[in-house]
Amino acid sequence: MDDQAHQDEASPEMQARVRASFESQGLMGHLGARIAHIAPGRVRITLPHRPEVTQQNGYFHAGATSAIADSAGGYAAFTLFPEDTSVLSVEYKINLLAPALGDHIEAIGTVLKSGRTLTVCRLEVFGVRGEERSLVATGQQTLIRVEARPEQ
Amino acid sequence: MDDQAHQDEASPEMQARVRASFESQGLMGHLGARIAHIAPGRVRITLPHRPEVTQQNGYFHAGATSAIADSAGGYAAFTLFPEDTSVLSVEYKINLLAPALGDHIEAIGTVLKSGRTLTVCRLEVFGVRGEERSLVATGQQTLIRVEARPEQ
Amino acid sequence: MDDQAHQDEASPEMQARVRASFESQGLMGHLGARIAHIAPGRVRITLPHRPEVTQQNGYFHAGATSAIADSAGGYAAFTLFPEDTSVLSVEYKINLLAPALGDHIEAIGTVLKSGRTLTVCRLEVFGVRGEERSLVATGQQTLIRVEARPEQ
Amino acid sequence: MDDQAHQDEASPEMQARVRASFESQGLMGHLGARIAHIAPGRVRITLPHRPEVTQQNGYFHAGATSAIADSAGGYAAFTLFPEDTSVLSVEYKINLLAPALGDHIEAIGTVLKSGRTLTVCRLEVFGVRGEERSLVATGQQTLIRVEARPEQ
Repeated sequence: MDDQAHQDEASPEMQARVRASFESQGLMGHLGARIAHIAPGRVRITLPHRPEVTQQNGYFHAGATSAIADSAGGYAAFTLFPEDTSVLSVEYKINLLAPALGDHIEAIGTVLKSGRTLTVCRLEVFGVRGEERSLVATGQQTLIRVEARPEQ
Repeated sequence: MDDQAHQDEASPEMQARVRASFESQGLMGHLGARIAHIAPGRVRITLPHRPEVTQQNGYFHAGATSAIADSAGGYAAFTLFPEDTSVLSVEYKINLLAPALGDHIEAIGTVLKSGRTLTVCRLEVFGVRGEERSLVATGQQTLIRVEARPEQ
Repeated sequence: MDDQAHQDEASPEMQARVRASFESQGLMGHLGARIAHIAPGRVRITLPHRPEVTQQNGYFHAGATSAIADSAGGYAAFTLFPEDTSVLSVEYKINLLAPALGDHIEAIGTVLKSGRTLTVCRLEVFGVRGEERSLVATGQQTLIRVEARPEQ
Repeated sequence: MDDQAHQDEASPEMQARVRASFESQGLMGHLGARIAHIAPGRVRITLPHRPEVTQQNGYFHAGATSAIADSAGGYAAFTLFPEDTSVLSVEYKINLLAPALGDHIEAIGTVLKSGRTLTVCRLEVFGVRGEERSLVATGQQTLIRVEARPEQ
């Protein structure tokens, strides 16, 4: 993926497909996550801080951090898929580099390799407070393209 | 960890420490998760199905699946720690083996190796419907023991 | 996979297919690894200790440990595949639990889930000295089934 | 890590420490790997193609690919450590993106986060043939700093 591509916005049709899917994910709405940007092969999702998404010390819970990272990677893969296909996470691995603090966190999923069957994404999560921005988690994810109704 | 140990319940003091920490995790309450069992080196957490924890097809969202898996492993490690210490997830990897379906899912964290600094857990998540029970996710997690107030 | 199945040996035809493939892996011969057991969904590979497979402290190098773990998982998956198919590792994750010591190490790959396209294996590596045997590494691996000549 | 830092060579003392350790790793010599570049927080290791490092199709074996990736990350971490300390791999995860082909492969380990106890590295492996260069594997690794004689 060249960097220019990532700056671009996805086509309005693709953006609509991604947003429709995102809005049908009960968990994303329940957490308060929203899609911040959709480019071909790269999607950003943000999650504001509030008590409902924390662990015992008031930081973002690793489960919330990885939930939006997983979704960001999934939709990044999805932007490069043909119509009438869907995406499923096969697996992912995430390192929690630092306590996830900030007014909000932002997850970026970026396609590293888009194959016919499998896609591999890089996952990054940043803690953001005002102008400050620091990497709090980094991961790697494998996804599979499935026809119509998803079945692994 | 021998299997007998896993059958046993943790001491009342340890159970109280784990439950107090769990109840202070905003995310677990917000998802509707609860601790089902606390043994030395093994903790089970359950999550009932409801629209707030689903992805676009009505299955449990991978983010919800891994949130309770991560917590189950974290508390499994914590049961073997001395007082005045806390636990942080360093990293984990999870394979989503099948669509996570059922009345509820159940995550089991089991300590494979408990070191002075680092602990490694196996994570398993089952989809449960009535008497049926099938493995929907399996993972591996590294945790670090920290003194008092957690700082990685 | 039930435990009984793992005790059984694979059919002579399957054993021959696995051994033929193993012998064509230059790396396995160069390291001195050999196949110790082939059951449906479970394969064991051993590697004797010698200076050519060590890291700077004389322990087995993590690269040698994971090379035989990766192969054990790959062949475990392969035993469940139909003829005219091949196997490729998609990804794996391995935790190095303790310095890998012993007269030899033994890697066991066990199929956890065998799907039409993807297979997931558990990887375990033991350090063995005489009667003593201890877990030195544990991992999880995803593999893909490919037709005839492998191409991802 | 800023990019400029990665261009720089490590100090002669640090380079000597890394090379001395590398030369004491029996496996690296046995495979035919050599260190190509040592910068603070970034190390490159190359491995020429020959039958001794292949899998059954003549590609580089995933075990060889990850052996040099693991070492590249380990030495990248090590370049940022104080004297009288050593490094051990805690775990790593690697995605094999494409058949590893080329005259040689080159692994680059880059420190993403250097903590007091734990370091996290990105691992990348490229297949190189003449001027052509393509990413064949990408991974993520956790390492621990240990005093003098390594013990996890």
